[in-house]
Amino acid sequence: MPYKIAVIVGSLRKASLNLKMAKALSKMAADSLQLQIIDIGSLPLYNEDLDVNPPAQWQTFRQQVSECQGLLFITPEYNRSVPGVLKNAIDVGSRPYGKSVWDNKPGAIISVSPGNMGGFGANHHLRQSLVFLNVPTLQQPEAYIGGAAKLFDEEGNITNDSTASFLHKFIEAYTSWVAKHVKA
Amino acid sequence: MPYKIAVIVGSLRKASLNLKMAKALSKMAADSLQLQIIDIGSLPLYNEDLDVNPPAQWQTFRQQVSECQGLLFITPEYNRSVPGVLKNAIDVGSRPYGKSVWDNKPGAIISVSPGNMGGFGANHHLRQSLVFLNVPTLQQPEAYIGGAAKLFDEEGNITNDSTASFLHKFIEAYTSWVAKHVKA
Amino acid sequence: MPYKIAVIVGSLRKASLNLKMAKALSKMAADSLQLQIIDIGSLPLYNEDLDVNPPAQWQTFRQQVSECQGLLFITPEYNRSVPGVLKNAIDVGSRPYGKSVWDNKPGAIISVSPGNMGGFGANHHLRQSLVFLNVPTLQQPEAYIGGAAKLFDEEGNITNDSTASFLHKFIEAYTSWVAKHVKA
Amino acid sequence: MPYKIAVIVGSLRKASLNLKMAKALSKMAADSLQLQIIDIGSLPLYNEDLDVNPPAQWQTFRQQVSECQGLLFITPEYNRSVPGVLKNAIDVGSRPYGKSVWDNKPGAIISVSPGNMGGFGANHHLRQSLVFLNVPTLQQPEAYIGGAAKLFDEEGNITNDSTASFLHKFIEAYTSWVAKHVKA
Repeated sequence: MPYKIAVIVGSLRKASLNLKMAKALSKMAADSLQLQIIDIGSLPLYNEDLDVNPPAQWQTFRQQVSECQGLLFITPEYNRSVPGVLKNAIDVGSRPYGKSVWDNKPGAIISVSPGNMGGFGANHHLRQSLVFLNVPTLQQPEAYIGGAAKLFDEEGNITNDSTASFLHKFIEAYTSWVAKHVKA
Repeated sequence: MPYKIAVIVGSLRKASLNLKMAKALSKMAADSLQLQIIDIGSLPLYNEDLDVNPPAQWQTFRQQVSECQGLLFITPEYNRSVPGVLKNAIDVGSRPYGKSVWDNKPGAIISVSPGNMGGFGANHHLRQSLVFLNVPTLQQPEAYIGGAAKLFDEEGNITNDSTASFLHKFIEAYTSWVAKHVKA
Repeated sequence: MPYKIAVIVGSLRKASLNLKMAKALSKMAADSLQLQIIDIGSLPLYNEDLDVNPPAQWQTFRQQVSECQGLLFITPEYNRSVPGVLKNAIDVGSRPYGKSVWDNKPGAIISVSPGNMGGFGANHHLRQSLVFLNVPTLQQPEAYIGGAAKLFDEEGNITNDSTASFLHKFIEAYTSWVAKHVKA
Repeated sequence: MPYKIAVIVGSLRKASLNLKMAKALSKMAADSLQLQIIDIGSLPLYNEDLDVNPPAQWQTFRQQVSECQGLLFITPEYNRSVPGVLKNAIDVGSRPYGKSVWDNKPGAIISVSPGNMGGFGANHHLRQSLVFLNVPTLQQPEAYIGGAAKLFDEEGNITNDSTASFLHKFIEAYTSWVAKHVKA
């Protein structure tokens, strides 16, 4: 039975390359991973004061992540770092203190950019947060997907063979990582 | 005449230590810097699709920052990085493409934490964004303010002499930095 | 039988606090981990040109690390990052291409400083290298040991109970991590 | 009269792309900057114990940097960070305490890689050290030079027009930065 994985996409654009990547991976990984894209675009900005009576969207989000066994972050780089919208979701899920929904769920990161550098800055800043959040995170293969504007056809399939082959390897490595780390 | 400086506070809590720090600094710096605390708590999450017809809060925020000559970020660390709410403000101000409100305004960072480490992770992740945003950023003195829960009295004044003295030095260094970098 | 762990100490000072930490941990961990402190102070600076006929010290170092099952880095922070001497050892061990001695060995980091901040900058810069080197690295507990000048008595024992207790927890967590990741 | 700039090259290979870049820039910048490539390959590994009677190579290096007005770092990325050999030079130049040769000299970074990502990891890790070292560092244009193996002809000239044009812009921006920050 495939592992249930929360997919957090770091861009809210309708035509987001990252969302396309998430959808393409959902198909590619279907045998081993059931990818659930979880909405982060309606989460109110994190404010500890609200946590005495948390907004409904926070509660739904926390619940949805809690029900998954692993975490896959697919994100662009904004201003050489993690998009605010994604970091806000991280912050919402990490609280209240002692009830983080991220804790101990095996994770992986794919950073995606239209340019050459493949979102390096977002990828590694996110990793620093995942240390604190106790998310054991896949090291290799690192996934920096550059030139992403040309990757997809109109149906959202990946047209580039070497990228498709790389992503299959990535899925395989992440599936093994989940198997090793998921709570029995 | 004092320089007009946009102050961006990275926490939305009413009793935020960072907000207290911003208010204390406003008084301390009044001779050389006019600190304007700019609200970021009502900014909708950045989504490029909305920029064809940007939300009123984005427009107000961009306008307010534009009218300032420098940038002072006062921020906690959330999950070893910049709070999502602050990163979202950074992202909103950086767009649309070619119209960033941050560009070329001299900046400085104070990171504040209740614990010992003084927000190191937030401080340096923010610096990485400021490289891309072309914000010449004060290097020394670095300001990592730990143990902040005990810093303020009931009127919000800083009770610790060595911290107060450090902050005076910081203000002086930042004022010189602004003088050197502000557009004539 | 205890796991054999390569310990890399990031300071060359004779009276190094990091070396004291390594020795104290060797005793504390003896039941589960056999800690081998490996010399990095005599390694010539990495230069790819030399790898056609590598210096004897590089060969010895690579051999010593290869014989271990895990990696423990104990390091100060120099100039907000990894000491050059430690980064040089990382670089030497990572080459020649395809023959990295670090690959797939479970790792952990303890950063140690005399000041408050506990070597945060060194800790996380090192983690970024360990992603590339495919070292699955312990996330929690993070080990930032500040105020280290006052930690040891004249025999090198840790005098502070809460630090000793923390380190026991750290050893336990790392031992489990090694057990999960070591090649069977 | 051109400013005298210390150039620190992060690779020791004879055929280093970074060294080629340094030499190409020396010619291109000759009107405004006098670039002095300073050897770091013979510096003994930093060890504070040696600083009571520092090795001759440390003294020469410190003297050479001291005589310059600015700093240009040209570096590859090793294992997603600054090469050990370059970080060692940084450490040597930063000591003894209170006598750093880097202090307050205007700096800039060019990271160079054969692959696509242009040494992002080295570039930003180095920037974190330069904060501590009080080196005001050029923000824009950032210089990530990817695909560097194909950049030079046999005489070491840059054959790619868009890269040459970018480097001219970079030199111009850095020269202005030096003019603004150099001690009068």
